[in-house]
Amino acid sequence: MHIEELETPSVLIDLDRLERNIERMQARCDDAGVALRPHIKTHKIPAIARMQVDAGAIGIACQKVGEAEVFAQAGFNDILIPYNIIGKHKTARLADLVLYNRMTVAADNLPVIAGLSEAAAALDIRLRVLVDLATEIERTGATVSRVVELAKIIDNDEHLHFAGLMIYPSNATIRPALQETLTLLHEAGIGVEMVSGGGTGAALHMKEVPELTEIRIGTYAFNDWTTVSRGWCAPEDCAMTVKATVVSRPTENRAILDSGSKTLSSDVLEDGYGHILEYPDARIYKLNEEHGFVDLSACDAKPEIAEVVTVIPVHACVVTNLHNVLYGVRGDQVELTWAVAARGLVQ
Amino acid sequence: MHIEELETPSVLIDLDRLERNIERMQARCDDAGVALRPHIKTHKIPAIARMQVDAGAIGIACQKVGEAEVFAQAGFNDILIPYNIIGKHKTARLADLVLYNRMTVAADNLPVIAGLSEAAAALDIRLRVLVDLATEIERTGATVSRVVELAKIIDNDEHLHFAGLMIYPSNATIRPALQETLTLLHEAGIGVEMVSGGGTGAALHMKEVPELTEIRIGTYAFNDWTTVSRGWCAPEDCAMTVKATVVSRPTENRAILDSGSKTLSSDVLEDGYGHILEYPDARIYKLNEEHGFVDLSACDAKPEIAEVVTVIPVHACVVTNLHNVLYGVRGDQVELTWAVAARGLVQ
Repeated sequence: MHIEELETPSVLIDLDRLERNIERMQARCDDAGVALRPHIKTHKIPAIARMQVDAGAIGIACQKVGEAEVFAQAGFNDILIPYNIIGKHKTARLADLVLYNRMTVAADNLPVIAGLSEAAAALDIRLRVLVDLATEIERTGATVSRVVELAKIIDNDEHLHFAGLMIYPSNATIRPALQETLTLLHEAGIGVEMVSGGGTGAALHMKEVPELTEIRIGTYAFNDWTTVSRGWCAPEDCAMTVKATVVSRPTENRAILDSGSKTLSSDVLEDGYGHILEYPDARIYKLNEEHGFVDLSACDAKPEIAEVVTVIPVHACVVTNLHNVLYGVRGDQVELTWAVAARGLVQ
Repeated sequence: MHIEELETPSVLIDLDRLERNIERMQARCDDAGVALRPHIKTHKIPAIARMQVDAGAIGIACQKVGEAEVFAQAGFNDILIPYNIIGKHKTARLADLVLYNRMTVAADNLPVIAGLSEAAAALDIRLRVLVDLATEIERTGATVSRVVELAKIIDNDEHLHFAGLMIYPSNATIRPALQETLTLLHEAGIGVEMVSGGGTGAALHMKEVPELTEIRIGTYAFNDWTTVSRGWCAPEDCAMTVKATVVSRPTENRAILDSGSKTLSSDVLEDGYGHILEYPDARIYKLNEEHGFVDLSACDAKPEIAEVVTVIPVHACVVTNLHNVLYGVRGDQVELTWAVAARGLVQ
């Protein structure tokens, strides 16, 4: 099928670019001696994770137990969930996955560790746990001394296995804290198998953190206007685009697209809610649920009603999450249709 | 099932509140002599639309052809799509729906009208078309004189039927333009069956626009922190809440919820990304995809790790669109589970 036959809005994945992004990042990781663990949050599609593993990835990362269940079912068996999993049902589901898969999970506090231990004890298994070291983004994560305390507790728990450290993002700024932690763990006689870093931006500098054994990254597969804006890739590396139709031109300088926040998400950058390839001087300045508001005042040429335009979205991962299917295209042909298998599995 | 048995994040719909919201708005419309046409974008669930129609609604509004197909299949047969539908496939699908359902669609420009005419001609049917009158929100819509021109073109097309006017939002500010349009149409001998207004806020003042024959509103069924903030309802009218778990407390004044932009959406108000009922002084100041960042500095009592909190989201309609299921609850019991049937049908 020709891509012009697709209705809009449609989310297209350029297969040449996807393949190139996967190969290039794998080569970069190989060169740095860091294992690549793609985060599936970006695509939520087992077939793409398969491409990543076939290219050399060590396993995958999922952010939710529900995602891990879908990918385990699809045959992936080295899965890291870099997240505090809380709740009796959820930890039981996680423990179930351990019966048949190599699972690793993260924790940054005692109640989480206690819950994991209880779930593992119920099945008489041993669950692999990383401890989350706090970074400059001030999200989750424990301080150095607390990480060591938690590692000792995990190490002493017969149903848990201390597998190492988790960091997000693994920028070079974390290195002093990381080295201090590793020294303290070494002095305590606690082995560290994995130091799992993360972040598509951090991946560009992973050689500056030689303590990393692996890196979790998602966005590099598709890229988006954020990774372009931060200088992490070129516009030509963006595999994901949204085809949108101009449905109204109420004034000389306003166009309305059939793609709003339910298509592009409300994630926004300083220059708007996405970049229109054919009209780089246009600005998507506002979104309603199904309307994209475009300011054309800086454009010499302006799109006509019914014209289809190509939008590079601000944030690929949340766009995936809004759609039932993504279309894999090569040149002007639609080569395949992927169901977004793990979409909406927030638990 | 007790609601405490639900894993988080979960989207709960309080059935008592939903029923009350539906009844109250129907009574308000009945009192104003304006037909109520609920917009299903808020819930995308046929069973809820059925409750609305059973309460007295005249039919429904859908924003996309794909949504209309789901609801037509579910037995709704008076469906308005207040949107410019463009594209041969899409207009053909719309015409197919007309064969068995009373369908009405909107247009604000000639290419859209030409496409609708062509699709209707192919099936030798007549398609009902409203013309979209521009309002103060500067989205879609034609000017008064242009509306009259377009109405004449539709009126002269043997495969189209000019059904009236569409307005969004139908605030009192539109009344002069609306009256002028109606006068001009009357002078041209063109009948107006419907004047379809819209907007949950506008519904509070519909008596000020007596020209309205019906009103399209969606959010009133669930309400959200935006409708509360604008004074359109009380917090007790919010039927939709998101149950979230505190998964980390990295510092005294920071909590991390298991609900990020893939659960709550990136829609934001001045006071944050949602309102936590149990900690009204807490502020959800940032979201990552699966992390909600909460500032507790203004709170006397602070939530503990593993505590489940209740978030009123900023925008109910986009939250629905992020989830596979909504849970209907009464008191502390989960009474039913709804699949979000028309979710992700952006075309």
